[in-house]
Amino acid sequence: MAKNSKSNLSEKEGVSQPETTSANSAEKIKINRRKQASIEDYVSKILKGDITFLSRAITLVESTNKKHLQKANSILDACLPHANKSIRIGITGVPGVGKSTFIETFGKYLTNIGKKVAVLAVDPSSSINKGSILGDKTRMEQLVTDKNAFIRPSPSGTSLGGVAQKTRESIILCEAAGFDTIIIETVGVGQSETVVHSMVDFFLLLKLSGAGDELQGIKRGIIEMADAIIINKADGDNIKNAKIAKVEFSRALHLYPPKDNGWIPKTMIASALNNKGIDEVYTMISEYIQQAKLTQYFEKKRAYQSKNWLFSTIEEELKKRFYENTEVKKLLDEEIKKLEQSKTTPFNAADNLLKLSTNGLK
Amino acid sequence: MAKNSKSNLSEKEGVSQPETTSANSAEKIKINRRKQASIEDYVSKILKGDITFLSRAITLVESTNKKHLQKANSILDACLPHANKSIRIGITGVPGVGKSTFIETFGKYLTNIGKKVAVLAVDPSSSINKGSILGDKTRMEQLVTDKNAFIRPSPSGTSLGGVAQKTRESIILCEAAGFDTIIIETVGVGQSETVVHSMVDFFLLLKLSGAGDELQGIKRGIIEMADAIIINKADGDNIKNAKIAKVEFSRALHLYPPKDNGWIPKTMIASALNNKGIDEVYTMISEYIQQAKLTQYFEKKRAYQSKNWLFSTIEEELKKRFYENTEVKKLLDEEIKKLEQSKTTPFNAADNLLKLSTNGLK
Repeated sequence: MAKNSKSNLSEKEGVSQPETTSANSAEKIKINRRKQASIEDYVSKILKGDITFLSRAITLVESTNKKHLQKANSILDACLPHANKSIRIGITGVPGVGKSTFIETFGKYLTNIGKKVAVLAVDPSSSINKGSILGDKTRMEQLVTDKNAFIRPSPSGTSLGGVAQKTRESIILCEAAGFDTIIIETVGVGQSETVVHSMVDFFLLLKLSGAGDELQGIKRGIIEMADAIIINKADGDNIKNAKIAKVEFSRALHLYPPKDNGWIPKTMIASALNNKGIDEVYTMISEYIQQAKLTQYFEKKRAYQSKNWLFSTIEEELKKRFYENTEVKKLLDEEIKKLEQSKTTPFNAADNLLKLSTNGLK
Repeated sequence: MAKNSKSNLSEKEGVSQPETTSANSAEKIKINRRKQASIEDYVSKILKGDITFLSRAITLVESTNKKHLQKANSILDACLPHANKSIRIGITGVPGVGKSTFIETFGKYLTNIGKKVAVLAVDPSSSINKGSILGDKTRMEQLVTDKNAFIRPSPSGTSLGGVAQKTRESIILCEAAGFDTIIIETVGVGQSETVVHSMVDFFLLLKLSGAGDELQGIKRGIIEMADAIIINKADGDNIKNAKIAKVEFSRALHLYPPKDNGWIPKTMIASALNNKGIDEVYTMISEYIQQAKLTQYFEKKRAYQSKNWLFSTIEEELKKRFYENTEVKKLLDEEIKKLEQSKTTPFNAADNLLKLSTNGLK
């Protein structure tokens, strides 16, 4: 049926174990035979905080099957009035920065003070999606077994835009299920940071103390997006260097224009391994959110993000429709060749391509 | 006929004085009666460096009249093999940073060493387009009368995307006319910097020594785009502060990931007023270009920019076609209202809007 077990999984509705990345035949049959839950079932279970139904709803959201998507949309519509009440935190950093350990320690800190934490990954290369589930469990073994935590790997095999769309809808479902702190993880080297930045209230960048090689991989522009930079792995011999890095980055960040709300990004040191500095990070975020709510910047930013998502969804689809057309593909190849040989201008080439398309509106 | 003198001007072809912003009736008649130059005339004159024909060709490029645009495209096609040989430098900075004086001094420096300099403005609020032509002449009175310099204000009244498109085509015409250094000016507070950044070889950010208030207006993200930061107005009492700012920014820029070609942005001080530091700026840019050409980064970047322009032109037009549709406009208003009241999700809203549009390809 489906080409591989992954797409097969995402098209199945009744998956009760969201962490499963492959299903054996017996499981598949079981899934197929299971009585399909109604929209009402989904909604009432989600609102009660039922993790299994939350997972299954996210699987519906991630499905490429039209019927599943229709069902997903109805569930989302019903959940919407109960959403929007969380704090959404984006966490990024290149591999090796200790992101999993940080999220594990930070997540445990949050559940200890009574929060309900959902962790979602945006790009397939994020740590919680890397390798097998066994890998994830090893990486975040405490958080995985925490009743007040929900960890959801991102669906792999889809485009970034697709994953990001799904993530945003997954946030709504998690919020409706009572999760008050949503952590969105991204790997910090691709395009996903901009996308994550556009769906969170606070954006954390994890770094190491060395300002050399480890910066090579990071995307330019990401530092300007960060609301705070955490120098992680500030333990053992690293503490001194971490403190120096903190001072340097604080100084640097002061030279940059403040954020729209006047916020000057903070720099802090932390050791997720030794559970040091985690409470300070949380205090900083809380104070930021409190201030943002006081000034109504919080609501304004969310409304702005929401509209932005409407527009970017439309524009992604318009592009997709255009570029996936066979005629366009053929001519595009030709025009790019001419462009490379300086035989046309970008605008003439665009003009020729656009002639293939009419207005397209009924 | 035309709604105002500006659009009238841009639709007239035979304008020999590009600086004229209004034409009286007698002039209009004269213009209308003038024999229209052929494409061959244009091309041969431009290739000989005829400023009048260069200006008239840019006016054609900027026209909204379809016939003019067809002619413009033919001229561009013929000029294309003679283009691409200049160095393109973007200069940005908020108002008050001394951009006009800097460009004037820098431009004069370049013509003195035998360069031919074209200055183009991208956004309507750039200094060379602010106020009347008399204002421009006052601002850059030496450069304006320099035979080896060509100053072209940006067409006002058009969208940023439009202006930027025109600017890119104007670059080609200027290059064909023998200008070996193209300066693109932008005001540093809007969206135009990204656009300018995507069409130049080197991107300069002008700043003042104070790192406080004057940063408020600047767009976040712009510092990461800059290949160099020039602390301008380093004269009189300012010298000491400028030197401090230089050290601070150098340190800060070193904390950031290097550019794709390994370049770490430089910081310099200059006083355009006293003609200090200008030669150093030029030396730095020359060395950068030399290095970029050696490693073939220069050609790669231009090829990349060229393709990018093809795609962004297409995508701008697709968006325009969609959002300017009457049905879309109406439904968009409704969906945004629902979104603001949390009665829909961005994706459901987008879905409804996209249903109005079919694939649109023949």
